[in-house]
Amino acid sequence: MQLPNHGANPDHLVRALRLSKPQHAIDFSVNTTPFPLPDHIRTNWNNYFETIGRYPDPGSEQLLEFLSRKEGVNKKQLLVGNGAAQLIYLLATYFQKKKVAILEPTFSEYRDACFAFGCEIESVIMDEPWQVNKEDLVRRCKKSDILFVCNPNNPTGVSYPLADMVFVIKELSLHGVMVVVDEAFFDFQVQGVTLIQMVNQFDNLIILRSLTKMYGLAGLRLGFMAANDKIIANISKLQNPWSVNGLAQQIGLECLRNDEYVKQVQLYMKNERLHLFPLLNELGYEVSNSQVNFYLLKDKNKQRDSIELMKYLILNGIIPRHTYNFASLHGRYLRLAIRTQEDNKRLLKVLQRWRETC
Amino acid sequence: MQLPNHGANPDHLVRALRLSKPQHAIDFSVNTTPFPLPDHIRTNWNNYFETIGRYPDPGSEQLLEFLSRKEGVNKKQLLVGNGAAQLIYLLATYFQKKKVAILEPTFSEYRDACFAFGCEIESVIMDEPWQVNKEDLVRRCKKSDILFVCNPNNPTGVSYPLADMVFVIKELSLHGVMVVVDEAFFDFQVQGVTLIQMVNQFDNLIILRSLTKMYGLAGLRLGFMAANDKIIANISKLQNPWSVNGLAQQIGLECLRNDEYVKQVQLYMKNERLHLFPLLNELGYEVSNSQVNFYLLKDKNKQRDSIELMKYLILNGIIPRHTYNFASLHGRYLRLAIRTQEDNKRLLKVLQRWRETC
Repeated sequence: MQLPNHGANPDHLVRALRLSKPQHAIDFSVNTTPFPLPDHIRTNWNNYFETIGRYPDPGSEQLLEFLSRKEGVNKKQLLVGNGAAQLIYLLATYFQKKKVAILEPTFSEYRDACFAFGCEIESVIMDEPWQVNKEDLVRRCKKSDILFVCNPNNPTGVSYPLADMVFVIKELSLHGVMVVVDEAFFDFQVQGVTLIQMVNQFDNLIILRSLTKMYGLAGLRLGFMAANDKIIANISKLQNPWSVNGLAQQIGLECLRNDEYVKQVQLYMKNERLHLFPLLNELGYEVSNSQVNFYLLKDKNKQRDSIELMKYLILNGIIPRHTYNFASLHGRYLRLAIRTQEDNKRLLKVLQRWRETC
Repeated sequence: MQLPNHGANPDHLVRALRLSKPQHAIDFSVNTTPFPLPDHIRTNWNNYFETIGRYPDPGSEQLLEFLSRKEGVNKKQLLVGNGAAQLIYLLATYFQKKKVAILEPTFSEYRDACFAFGCEIESVIMDEPWQVNKEDLVRRCKKSDILFVCNPNNPTGVSYPLADMVFVIKELSLHGVMVVVDEAFFDFQVQGVTLIQMVNQFDNLIILRSLTKMYGLAGLRLGFMAANDKIIANISKLQNPWSVNGLAQQIGLECLRNDEYVKQVQLYMKNERLHLFPLLNELGYEVSNSQVNFYLLKDKNKQRDSIELMKYLILNGIIPRHTYNFASLHGRYLRLAIRTQEDNKRLLKVLQRWRETC
């Protein structure tokens, strides 16, 4: 049995490894917020019932208007989707059979989607500590048609300097290369800077964003795309009507209005990183320089493979995300979510015990 | 301003006609059930809250298993989608640039989707009373790659004889023509016969079904497709992961388990048709031979255009579906939903007044 392609699938992972999942196992393989949805969503839940019976607004107009004001781009430069995953597949449909470069290791859906649509795919591998090398990236991608960059990156959590990103987009625009920047985890950074307003400046820039991760709406599906109005008009023709269900439109809008929630999560994540990462280093683990809500980890004494550590964690009720299907990682690392303080303490304890026994 | 492309958009229609919508106007342009969702869905509503936070099962396994048993086809012959609309667009993606024939007048999304994906489209027009002419249909489509048939048909409500459909599918299989049969309104017929099990017999048959209409889940989006396992495997590669949101999977399954609800709606629709249609005829209206939950109507005295009747209905609180974007109808008819008895009575009264004044 194959390991699952994504996190948030603990039962599949445990079965594939022929292990049994202990009671009260904690899913550290997920990369959404560890917090409950904003209180007002639960409070209003009964009011949403009528939404499921009505056709959703095919244009997601209210969401578009809010996003347009919030992000400072025109409505015609925005497209709302059934999760960022739909938008990635629409991009692959639009760019089918073209030459695609992917900055890796990264989220596997860029490759899967582009492969399904007959693209010629080239990996541009970053070495540890997974920072972008802007000149090298431009040199290697200038003959491609499209470059996919995830920023902050999944699975490393590393965020690339704004100036480097602008350099890459600008240089590649001279070579007619489209740059897709997936900012799915942008929200989790403290004072993160989005490139979204640069769609006004660069015709070769496409931004992806997700509401699934920050607000914990993975079951509802909601994401959006920004680009110049011609690209948006062309891609929206390929999108089926009523893509975004009515509940996602309504709850998404109410979540977006809650700035305070986002700030609290950002601050929490920052404090937990500042607390956790030095402790993990002291215990002899290498940790990626994450700016978001997950990170890569490996045992400094086990450089080649984390399979034994993964099994140990699972047997002790911690479900990590394997990294076998991330280019160049080959399972050497595990991806772990930053969860609640209580959960993170439990993780630390198990990692301490592993250290003592190995 | 253009008229809306679909029903269930009364505000858009009224604005486009520069009318104002009376208070308590009733939407007869929608084609979903007029009844509330099954009681148990409302009762369980609070239990669904947790669903929105979890990633949906990417494979919709529970739904697939249930549908497989219920419909008598293998799980590998089924694909669940974000509404039938997503599946229509996936078909258009899969068949892009091919020669498509559409049996019309019918649902406009087959044309819109195929057009977006560069297909060459040919209309095969049925004349009133919109019955399929099987020999003619085969003759006109045998050089196409794909034929789209909606059965029972939207907007006429007419259902085609099983033997005719089998003839068409069989003959066209000899010419290598795929036949897509959209059974979105199948559920509304009393003792309707689905072609779904024939995917075991005919490699050129693709069936579409919707759960949106019968159960009133338009806001949630849920549909499925059946075909031979190779086609399903190929098309599912083009479908983005997590297409079907978690709530749609769960509520869809619980609705499907409620056979009794479907039988009641079927019986209600049959009785209302038997009651309404003769009365409409007596009042001087022509009505299509519908077997489902909507029908076409025109004033026998106004053969060319229903625009005046449409405006009269709107001003009297009845919002019909215009037929300007249905091939060959050119607005001559209006499509009207069969709604609750009270609503239908109100419609009859307004139509009676129109008769008296015209």
